[in-house]
Amino acid sequence: MRRVYNFSSGPAILPQPVLEQIQAELLDWNGTGMSVMEMSHRGEAFVSIAERAEATLRRLLGLPSNYKVLFLQGGATAQFSMVPMNLLRGASADFIDTGIWSKKAIAEAGRYGSARVAASAESDGFNHVPEQTSLELDGQAAYLHYTPNETIGGVEFGYVPDSGTVPLVADMSSTMLSRPLDISRFGLIYAGAQKNLGPAGLTLVIVREDLFHEPMAGTPKVFDYRVYADNGSMYNTPPTFAWYAAGLVFEWIEAEGGLQAMGERNRRKAQKVYDVLDASSLYRAKVRADSRSWMNVTFTLADETLEASFLAGAEAAGMSDLRGHRSVGGIRASLYNAMPESGVDMLCEYMREFERSQA
Amino acid sequence: MRRVYNFSSGPAILPQPVLEQIQAELLDWNGTGMSVMEMSHRGEAFVSIAERAEATLRRLLGLPSNYKVLFLQGGATAQFSMVPMNLLRGASADFIDTGIWSKKAIAEAGRYGSARVAASAESDGFNHVPEQTSLELDGQAAYLHYTPNETIGGVEFGYVPDSGTVPLVADMSSTMLSRPLDISRFGLIYAGAQKNLGPAGLTLVIVREDLFHEPMAGTPKVFDYRVYADNGSMYNTPPTFAWYAAGLVFEWIEAEGGLQAMGERNRRKAQKVYDVLDASSLYRAKVRADSRSWMNVTFTLADETLEASFLAGAEAAGMSDLRGHRSVGGIRASLYNAMPESGVDMLCEYMREFERSQA
Repeated sequence: MRRVYNFSSGPAILPQPVLEQIQAELLDWNGTGMSVMEMSHRGEAFVSIAERAEATLRRLLGLPSNYKVLFLQGGATAQFSMVPMNLLRGASADFIDTGIWSKKAIAEAGRYGSARVAASAESDGFNHVPEQTSLELDGQAAYLHYTPNETIGGVEFGYVPDSGTVPLVADMSSTMLSRPLDISRFGLIYAGAQKNLGPAGLTLVIVREDLFHEPMAGTPKVFDYRVYADNGSMYNTPPTFAWYAAGLVFEWIEAEGGLQAMGERNRRKAQKVYDVLDASSLYRAKVRADSRSWMNVTFTLADETLEASFLAGAEAAGMSDLRGHRSVGGIRASLYNAMPESGVDMLCEYMREFERSQA
Repeated sequence: MRRVYNFSSGPAILPQPVLEQIQAELLDWNGTGMSVMEMSHRGEAFVSIAERAEATLRRLLGLPSNYKVLFLQGGATAQFSMVPMNLLRGASADFIDTGIWSKKAIAEAGRYGSARVAASAESDGFNHVPEQTSLELDGQAAYLHYTPNETIGGVEFGYVPDSGTVPLVADMSSTMLSRPLDISRFGLIYAGAQKNLGPAGLTLVIVREDLFHEPMAGTPKVFDYRVYADNGSMYNTPPTFAWYAAGLVFEWIEAEGGLQAMGERNRRKAQKVYDVLDASSLYRAKVRADSRSWMNVTFTLADETLEASFLAGAEAAGMSDLRGHRSVGGIRASLYNAMPESGVDMLCEYMREFERSQA
């Protein structure tokens, strides 16, 4: 068996112990004589798996009982519609514009009401996030939406915006469970699973109870949060295998020391790469120091023509998927929870060695 | 390792060779050094998996190029909204009402236009499907929708309704790939994967090109068929692992002799159980002989109080999930493609033995 250090932005590397457990019980989960993939979602075995996953997640996040956890499908992209259909409903909401993903959320929300941009760093090429003091907030907004981490740009908020009494909504697709989180600051958070949580095809939504509303007319029944909250996320057949795998990832995080430990490790991992960038005359970090992502480190090479050999050398050394997003180019190293520190050390060593070889 | 004969209605039994292949390559697919779950959906490896799955499916069904295959999320329940948002759009469509699943499709479609019932067997307790001659069709309908097999009731169409020039739409969640299919009779078919196709979380939609329309106002972007057709089903991150697993199931079907062989085997498997029912004074088939499902054989026991011991004995003998749907009770044996004939033989033998033991 060969294993590489996979720096993909998502779907992304998963913890090897989780994959090994999935493999070991693939044809027979816990003596049931069937794969988790084959289980009725209403049967005792799968219900126990589902409940355990939610309980572990609630422990990790310290979720109070007035927050509901929903296990949905469709990724963040489906949430770009589902959030405004349930929470905007023709009114006005505020958005912080930090790049490609927040723009997608803004564009889709604008079809269901007024999507007002409260701050944008576009004039600076999205190389930092707006400061709290620059947010022009509407106190009557249905909610304030932001993207704590832009996976493509590699900019990340070092703070949680203060939205006053307006509910705060966040697309946490690339940061959920990567560090401690004070859920009381948020009304609703959502995340596609395929970065820090598990396989693609599962979407986690955490909603404060008072935000369950009658959605706007014409909302598909499968886009009504209440339908899932009332049915334990089993109004329709849920993505059972992804739910199970995510539960194993939650348990792995807990065994590794929980969100505090994840946060310390992720900060340290990212810092190692940024230290290489800052000490280099070949590599250039794309993002201003105060807004650099722990999850997606983006940089360019002073000589663009070296990118291909940089990537080929990395691949040959067992480090894959370092190419930047096709819309922006450059290099991107995604360092989610499951990326071991040894992978980051190998990358840093490779980067220094590659620079020396160009001298 | 223990394996049972799993008669669940879905998520359901999968072919054991498919599970064994998934297990073998779980941490390292084809020497890439990563699990399929960890692969970028845009990377070369996953794109090859995705394309191969579609090619195999097209071969199995003999799909002409004017039919597009979409790999979506949300199950049939999402299609209950997505079909009318794209094809009904305020107009009128015809529906054949055969039970719980067709009723769900009708109820949701009625929110986006007029959902007209062209025929119903409700007055007979849904114990058969309406005949072609009883269909009161509207020649101006946007489409005619039907449910070839009702998973809960166990009624199945022995014929494909003739809808004239009106596009025929079918919820094939429990029959897709269970027998040969003349796709030219259909405008659009859809199926949740978790019966005959693979793990839950993947939905297969096959659409004839001329049915791609501008959806009605307010349709979420992720509910616009054209968005997926234009992006190779990768507008958002698809459920990659389920897509891969479905591809392996398609290959298994092909290796087993294709849809002709599946159909013959499925007809034979179902006939064996119905023969036991018809020769029995203890068991009663719920469905009229001309409308009996090959996929979900439903029956009751003359003495209802025996159900619990019937189910317990089956479980002890290694046959699980024979309990009927909670809304209708009784017994249900789901006999999808992956249920081996040996499982059906064991069930029949058990049923005869159980009846003898009650004499």
